Amino acid sequence: MTSLDKFINDNRNRYESELMDWLKIPSISTDPAYKADVKRGAEWLAERFRSLKFKTELIETCGHPLVFAEAPSVPGAPTVLVYGHYDVQPPDPLDEWVTPPFQPSIREGKVFARGATDDKGQMITHLFGAEAWIKTVGKLPVNLKFLIEGEEECGSEGLYEFLAGKYDSPLRTAQQMIQADIVVVSDNAQYGPGQPAVTYGLRGIAYFEIRLTGPKQDLHSGLYGGSISNPANALARMLAALVDENGRIQLDGFYDDIIELSDNEREQFAALGFDEQAYFAGVGVTGGFGEAGYSALERRWARPTCDINGLWSGYQGAGAKTIIPARAGAKVSFRLVPNQQPEKVHAALKAKLESLCPPGIILELISIHGAPGSMVPLDSPYMTAAARAIEKGFGKAPVFIRSGGSIPVVNAFAERAGMDTLLLGWGQDDDNLHSPNEKFLLADFHRGIATSAHLWEEIGKISTT
Amino acid sequence: MTSLDKFINDNRNRYESELMDWLKIPSISTDPAYKADVKRGAEWLAERFRSLKFKTELIETCGHPLVFAEAPSVPGAPTVLVYGHYDVQPPDPLDEWVTPPFQPSIREGKVFARGATDDKGQMITHLFGAEAWIKTVGKLPVNLKFLIEGEEECGSEGLYEFLAGKYDSPLRTAQQMIQADIVVVSDNAQYGPGQPAVTYGLRGIAYFEIRLTGPKQDLHSGLYGGSISNPANALARMLAALVDENGRIQLDGFYDDIIELSDNEREQFAALGFDEQAYFAGVGVTGGFGEAGYSALERRWARPTCDINGLWSGYQGAGAKTIIPARAGAKVSFRLVPNQQPEKVHAALKAKLESLCPPGIILELISIHGAPGSMVPLDSPYMTAAARAIEKGFGKAPVFIRSGGSIPVVNAFAERAGMDTLLLGWGQDDDNLHSPNEKFLLADFHRGIATSAHLWEEIGKISTT
Repeated sequence: MTSLDKFINDNRNRYESELMDWLKIPSISTDPAYKADVKRGAEWLAERFRSLKFKTELIETCGHPLVFAEAPSVPGAPTVLVYGHYDVQPPDPLDEWVTPPFQPSIREGKVFARGATDDKGQMITHLFGAEAWIKTVGKLPVNLKFLIEGEEECGSEGLYEFLAGKYDSPLRTAQQMIQADIVVVSDNAQYGPGQPAVTYGLRGIAYFEIRLTGPKQDLHSGLYGGSISNPANALARMLAALVDENGRIQLDGFYDDIIELSDNEREQFAALGFDEQAYFAGVGVTGGFGEAGYSALERRWARPTCDINGLWSGYQGAGAKTIIPARAGAKVSFRLVPNQQPEKVHAALKAKLESLCPPGIILELISIHGAPGSMVPLDSPYMTAAARAIEKGFGKAPVFIRSGGSIPVVNAFAERAGMDTLLLGWGQDDDNLHSPNEKFLLADFHRGIATSAHLWEEIGKISTT
Repeated sequence: MTSLDKFINDNRNRYESELMDWLKIPSISTDPAYKADVKRGAEWLAERFRSLKFKTELIETCGHPLVFAEAPSVPGAPTVLVYGHYDVQPPDPLDEWVTPPFQPSIREGKVFARGATDDKGQMITHLFGAEAWIKTVGKLPVNLKFLIEGEEECGSEGLYEFLAGKYDSPLRTAQQMIQADIVVVSDNAQYGPGQPAVTYGLRGIAYFEIRLTGPKQDLHSGLYGGSISNPANALARMLAALVDENGRIQLDGFYDDIIELSDNEREQFAALGFDEQAYFAGVGVTGGFGEAGYSALERRWARPTCDINGLWSGYQGAGAKTIIPARAGAKVSFRLVPNQQPEKVHAALKAKLESLCPPGIILELISIHGAPGSMVPLDSPYMTAAARAIEKGFGKAPVFIRSGGSIPVVNAFAERAGMDTLLLGWGQDDDNLHSPNEKFLLADFHRGIATSAHLWEEIGKISTT
């Protein structure tokens, strides 16, 4: 056992005690009544960084402050940026908590408290991982920066203003502050109990609203029906034309740029033994549907989609109303895989819809937001470093997974600073984040600390020249 | 000039005076505050029939009474049933009336009052048409019955109960009371100013609600998208498959039974000189759309349609919500032409939707209501009789037109007693029925009376053996 491992093992009780203190602070960012508590959370955290001799700043924003902390420079070593958040979701409904949300309670090896897993408990493992180096070796083997925000649960407005340079000073810009070789985030879950994972890919998104306008008012469908275009009929035709019966998206060039799943990835996904039938039953359906030729897991994680998110036209009440609606509309979004560009999807969608727009219908296509997908190459040295660290910290090699969702801050780091993000989740899917009785397994908390300490070592071995 | 024409001409002032009295009664059927006035309307009318020695009954129903009146029998002659209504729409908004709705006022040859055209003013022309015969010849040339209801503007519940036999007595059933060779209704408009018309066909309807259910709750479109069927996507596919790009409805056998427009009908429609561009501009669209190979008028009047009347799913608010909706639904209706059966459409729609329903989606198809189309053959002797009478009464031959709407009472007469209905409208499209300043051109009122008197004569010539 190295001195590092010994230190971590010897400090288990203190880690838990500090975690309890940390979770007692009700840093609820959405509720103005907790503004002082949120500030107290930022100060508690900043004080911890200062005690490790990190250069630490509370950056005041339009909302709650950002905590930025930077360890003393390690020339020649790679630079890591840890992103996380110290704010938490509101705890309502309070009466469903077995123990109060801000009085952390340990039961069956789990700590129950708001913020236990999302994200205070996970985030702080990296602080302890750094501390172990400083307290044993005297310094870190990497250049380490922390950017911990207080508004992740309420829109991150301050963070985005910071990243956009709004709080830059002549001495240092946000761009310089955050610049790193890799970003590390622990704000998600393992693949399952006992199976740690590295999430190396996220899907992007291109979200649109379609508005069709027909006659100047709803018309009697008997007296007018058959003579003019019905916006709802036109909308159905347009939407149906976006995906074929095999689940393939029918926009020109849609699949041209995408990075296909490698054989290696498909083998790794298949080896996970994902139980499709149990998954379908879990969401209450008798079977799945999607792009032919891919498993459900491949379709969720690594294939693009086209989903109608909302639909409206005419009469939605009980019984019959015999009208040709004046208007119809839809929300439609595409999940994108790495290397697809939202702008190209927008252009192809526009061309497709225009080609299907019948006489007498005015089409408006509004782009609501877009972000490309992201992926850290499986053969990246940072992936290898993360895998080695997890194997040491968890005693089990991680699986390499993707997520079908989009994480805006990951896109922001990629777009603003060209940085890849390693998503190293220590939580579990059933941790009740955003729900009553949020929890975090203490064994995973300690494994996370050990993994973090090893991660700095493994990343420190990577040559940056 | 015959004695009949002379009588009608000599009584113009009295007709107008009686019309004024008749329009003063605020027989607003929807508002319980006017219950006594509605009753007074029924009694006023019954009294007029009694004075002509019609056997007259006020039939009390669940709602307002029906007025049934039958002229003395004319053995061997055809039997005519005149249907109409003595109730009126509420007059709101009152402050938009130039003169009060129940103080009839004559301006520029038109009488302004609630009920002037819909339907008191039009209906009573047939009473005066009968009176002219009785006061000059001493008897009618046909067997004539009137069934005038007081709930046309509020759902006709009493009428339908009556037709269903609810108020039958051992002496006489509704079926026997209404039985006739032809039904005459004057409750609609001429083709245009100076151009009387016979409306000889109506479309039917088959109205449905489609409900699709997918996952047990809305799901995150990033985490789940691509793996399961999205009910909104499935709905769009189903709805789009109902009509092709040429406006042809894609249900199996949909066009098999329909009575095609004859060359004669198409020529007559074309001769109307319907201005499509003005019509499109009037409803606020730049162009029309519908079944290829037919004019807009043909498509409105005599071709079936499939219109989405309502559409709903997922998120309908501002901005983005990234969900796979748990449910999606639509109201869809088909306008049917004569000889199409709503039940067959229902079955074909069900088969079509089921064939398109993807895995993991539960489909419900609800039939809300259905009624077949109706048409009086252009070569029917009753059509010829109506045309001759109109030519005499209006001094101009009528055009033969259809309407794209459905009139439930016409269907009820056809279904319950196998009776065709002649729709002989004396009104104009701009008569403001259901709006402030409802009006009726007095010249048309008098032409209607003359036409009615001639109609009894012309129908009287038809052999019923």
